[in-house]
Amino acid sequence: MTPGRWQAQVLYDFIAEPGNNELTVKEGETVTITNQNIGGGWIEAQNSRGEVGLVPEDYIEVRSTVTDVGNVATADLSIFDAYAPQSAPAQSQASNGNDPWSVWNADPSGGSNNNWASNPEGTQTGKTAADPWSAASQGHPQAYQGPGAEDDEWDDEWDDMKSTGGYAESESGESGAMQRGGAHATSMKISLNKFPGFSKSGPELYLLCKQLAKGKEKLPIYMGEVGPVWSYPESQLDCVVADPKKGSKMYGLKSYIEYQIVPSTTNRPVNHRYKHFDWLYERLLDKFGSAIPIPSLPDKQVTGRFEEEFIKMRMERLQGWMTRMCRHPIVSCSEVFQTFLTYKDEKDWKTGKRKAEKDETVGVMIFSTIEPEGPDLDPVEVEQKCEQFSRFTKSMDDGVKEILTVGHEHWKRCTGPLPKEYQRIGKAFQNLSSVFTSSGYQGESTLTDAMTAAGKTYEEIAQLVAEQPRKDLHFLMETNNEYKGLLGCFPDTIGVHKAAIDKVKEGDKLVATSKITPQDKVTMAKRVSIMSYALQAEMNHFHSNRIYDYNRVMQLYLEEQVKFYETIAEKLRQAHSQFTTM
Amino acid sequence: MTPGRWQAQVLYDFIAEPGNNELTVKEGETVTITNQNIGGGWIEAQNSRGEVGLVPEDYIEVRSTVTDVGNVATADLSIFDAYAPQSAPAQSQASNGNDPWSVWNADPSGGSNNNWASNPEGTQTGKTAADPWSAASQGHPQAYQGPGAEDDEWDDEWDDMKSTGGYAESESGESGAMQRGGAHATSMKISLNKFPGFSKSGPELYLLCKQLAKGKEKLPIYMGEVGPVWSYPESQLDCVVADPKKGSKMYGLKSYIEYQIVPSTTNRPVNHRYKHFDWLYERLLDKFGSAIPIPSLPDKQVTGRFEEEFIKMRMERLQGWMTRMCRHPIVSCSEVFQTFLTYKDEKDWKTGKRKAEKDETVGVMIFSTIEPEGPDLDPVEVEQKCEQFSRFTKSMDDGVKEILTVGHEHWKRCTGPLPKEYQRIGKAFQNLSSVFTSSGYQGESTLTDAMTAAGKTYEEIAQLVAEQPRKDLHFLMETNNEYKGLLGCFPDTIGVHKAAIDKVKEGDKLVATSKITPQDKVTMAKRVSIMSYALQAEMNHFHSNRIYDYNRVMQLYLEEQVKFYETIAEKLRQAHSQFTTM
Repeated sequence: MTPGRWQAQVLYDFIAEPGNNELTVKEGETVTITNQNIGGGWIEAQNSRGEVGLVPEDYIEVRSTVTDVGNVATADLSIFDAYAPQSAPAQSQASNGNDPWSVWNADPSGGSNNNWASNPEGTQTGKTAADPWSAASQGHPQAYQGPGAEDDEWDDEWDDMKSTGGYAESESGESGAMQRGGAHATSMKISLNKFPGFSKSGPELYLLCKQLAKGKEKLPIYMGEVGPVWSYPESQLDCVVADPKKGSKMYGLKSYIEYQIVPSTTNRPVNHRYKHFDWLYERLLDKFGSAIPIPSLPDKQVTGRFEEEFIKMRMERLQGWMTRMCRHPIVSCSEVFQTFLTYKDEKDWKTGKRKAEKDETVGVMIFSTIEPEGPDLDPVEVEQKCEQFSRFTKSMDDGVKEILTVGHEHWKRCTGPLPKEYQRIGKAFQNLSSVFTSSGYQGESTLTDAMTAAGKTYEEIAQLVAEQPRKDLHFLMETNNEYKGLLGCFPDTIGVHKAAIDKVKEGDKLVATSKITPQDKVTMAKRVSIMSYALQAEMNHFHSNRIYDYNRVMQLYLEEQVKFYETIAEKLRQAHSQFTTM
Repeated sequence: MTPGRWQAQVLYDFIAEPGNNELTVKEGETVTITNQNIGGGWIEAQNSRGEVGLVPEDYIEVRSTVTDVGNVATADLSIFDAYAPQSAPAQSQASNGNDPWSVWNADPSGGSNNNWASNPEGTQTGKTAADPWSAASQGHPQAYQGPGAEDDEWDDEWDDMKSTGGYAESESGESGAMQRGGAHATSMKISLNKFPGFSKSGPELYLLCKQLAKGKEKLPIYMGEVGPVWSYPESQLDCVVADPKKGSKMYGLKSYIEYQIVPSTTNRPVNHRYKHFDWLYERLLDKFGSAIPIPSLPDKQVTGRFEEEFIKMRMERLQGWMTRMCRHPIVSCSEVFQTFLTYKDEKDWKTGKRKAEKDETVGVMIFSTIEPEGPDLDPVEVEQKCEQFSRFTKSMDDGVKEILTVGHEHWKRCTGPLPKEYQRIGKAFQNLSSVFTSSGYQGESTLTDAMTAAGKTYEEIAQLVAEQPRKDLHFLMETNNEYKGLLGCFPDTIGVHKAAIDKVKEGDKLVATSKITPQDKVTMAKRVSIMSYALQAEMNHFHSNRIYDYNRVMQLYLEEQVKFYETIAEKLRQAHSQFTTM
């Protein structure tokens, strides 16, 4: 159900790049907007010949609504950002799966498993906030909502909860789409390394803005041993997510789960519902998304055949998400994150919330707060670094997905056919033992007892095999799943960066055509250097965390695997000892 | 191609027992013989209404040949035993799969896997020798062949050799039919617990014979702790089958494999080809088959994708078969067996061979040599014992087949999908490690080295998993396979016994109708008691071997399993130690 179709007039000529789902349009031409939820400064339109494709949203101007769209009828195109339909998120793009990685690397998985089609940053409500670039110039619509209505008009996450068929299915390594409701995650499908012209949502906003916001926020970058690094707090923040409690409202008609979060700094618990985490995610994405990959929250529909299992799993993942945020020196120190963790009372929380929603240093403007201590970087080096990070994150994404795929298959085997087989072996030994017992022959009880014990041992092994994945593979999968989510943010983060680099490359041409001044060009080069410092600091943060996480998870996995095989060997040794030595 | 169809006249009324594929016939009726190779004293005939079924062969008299049957045209029914077509063994009974066990027990495997249809004693050449009961009165036809022709006219086993698709297929627990060429093994399909009337091939031959053969052969039975036992030799015979050598004849046109057999008594090697083992099997079956289950030789078409593997596997199984024969107190001490193991030269061998083939103490007459030390047994006890053994062997057969089935599946999993999965896990770790190495980040070589090592460890585990079945499951399968073959002989052995019991039960009636004298009846009861002693001694031998074998194979299996899991645990422990301790 399309909420409405607008006629729009084309303002400038635009020539489609082949293979990018773009539509060539001419100045003065009238097109019909078929999907306004593309994001990234693009819009899908249909020309009079029925051809459909993407055009830069700045190149067209809406004229009139074709169908009734209710109370929205302004000519300002920004409505698409601020008021994109909340109840009917765009789904028509579902098949238009451009892989943001595909610009640089071919997908070695054969392309059929094109997980990148679903942007993990796609917002659940279809709000502009999903697009860190366009959001930069808008602020978040929720900032304008009345304070009383804000809380209860959100969908209750509890009502949304649907149990899916357990870990094996929900963890199938299928796609980032599982992370945050695939249907909503369609707004960032196009390649992000293209910002032709002066898209209002590209990095130009930062690169060319005349007056940088004056705030107390300063994000210094130091030169560490490994290169540019963020400023790390003296003690690392941590928090515990625990004690999920079922609450209800509207006289019990609606129920929800409230989690207790205890930060290591105050050691004082605060309570939050899933939707508050979601709010926090949106704020962090708005504010830091251009510079720092903000991983999606755990999927609303995470695993769990039963309510308890579901709550436990979601809590575990919220914990993982919070831990990652706590470990980030910039995120953890941000005011919004601190508010979330340490608000004193309801009033304090609401005040903090409103303040965060009014924050204007969001989107690419976050770079305006960054202060690297090193000299300006050579644009060639900037580009090389960017390419390197892009290649690395793409390769790692492939590697992580490979582990998820084989892990998933291993999970299925270990919980399905393999224990069944051990059980059957166990039963077969026991059955033969029963037959032997019926022989009437004297003095074979040692053999039959031993055979029965051996049979029971294989039944125990069956259980060990079936239970083992929860003890080791689970964490390997969770970690890789987390990294899949994290890596899914890099195309966007790197995309902003590449767009900025392209813009700087265009510098001379832009000066020549008087679109920018020579001073603007110098400023752009300087600012892209700042962006590069930020990207390098972030990559170094990512690497250091990655080394820590994989070291830890591999150790845990192998440790549990050793225990597993040792337990089996010990059980079999006991079974063996019951037979008569000959 | 039917070699010929005979008209026959029915001599006595015979009323078919329902469900036994029998045909009701009336005295004076003319029937057409449709299959004379049924064995066990039965013949398949068709009446004028087209109905086909089994009738006792003593109840009919052949009148004339309907079609040209070449040089065989005597009216003596014994031709069916002595000259049953050698080149076209009976196959028409293939679908007539009566399960000899079904008389007492329903097959719990659902009946679809009716392995008992193929009699493991079915002779490869279609000669009467396959039927220990009819053979008793015939001697073996080969005894009358010229000495020069005997060797080279046999099919060369080497030419018959066909490699099948490896152990997994040939060991599929499919049926005893695989043991000795299913197509030939059709002659004993009918239930063997029926010998109505005075079938010449039933146990009556022994029960009622006036003059027991006077030979030096005496098979004493002692009362041991477990009941009646055979007389065991002081030291147990053993032999080693080794050193297979390829030989050829007819100027290299035909090749064969000769095995070296070294008995523990003389320690002097003798050479034999597969066909000699086959000859030995036939002799042992003729001579002892009514009292002692003589397991089939390993299938001609045992496993082996390659010639070497095939030879190795056949040798291993010939070794197993010889070991079992060596362990049998009666078989191992028999003249024919000793001749096979200890002949001095070609002449000695030929002389021994001819003597064995002329042996008349074969079939049920073997009981005439048995001398139990205990008192005559009560017929009720005799019957109870028989029923008990029958139930036990049937149950054990089911149990053994269950192990073969699950073992086969386990084999397939361990050599197929499971190692592939471990390999993929190993590759996934190594791939991710390579990606990490490409990060350009300093100081992560400890992690990447450890991850690569972990990956390689899982590749090693893959190989361990794939190789393990040959180290443990193989022997478990071989032992159970051997027992499947052995248990497949029991229906026949027990069948003779039950037939004798039935005959004794008929005693009064037979005396009343003057078919036997009162003295005959007493003799029969005494002789069935001797048969029972023999059966009990054999069962006790079976039980004692079974306990030894299963104790040994279970120990070996568990021992290897322990090693297997310990090796994996140790490998993983080493892999684990390479990660940085945190």
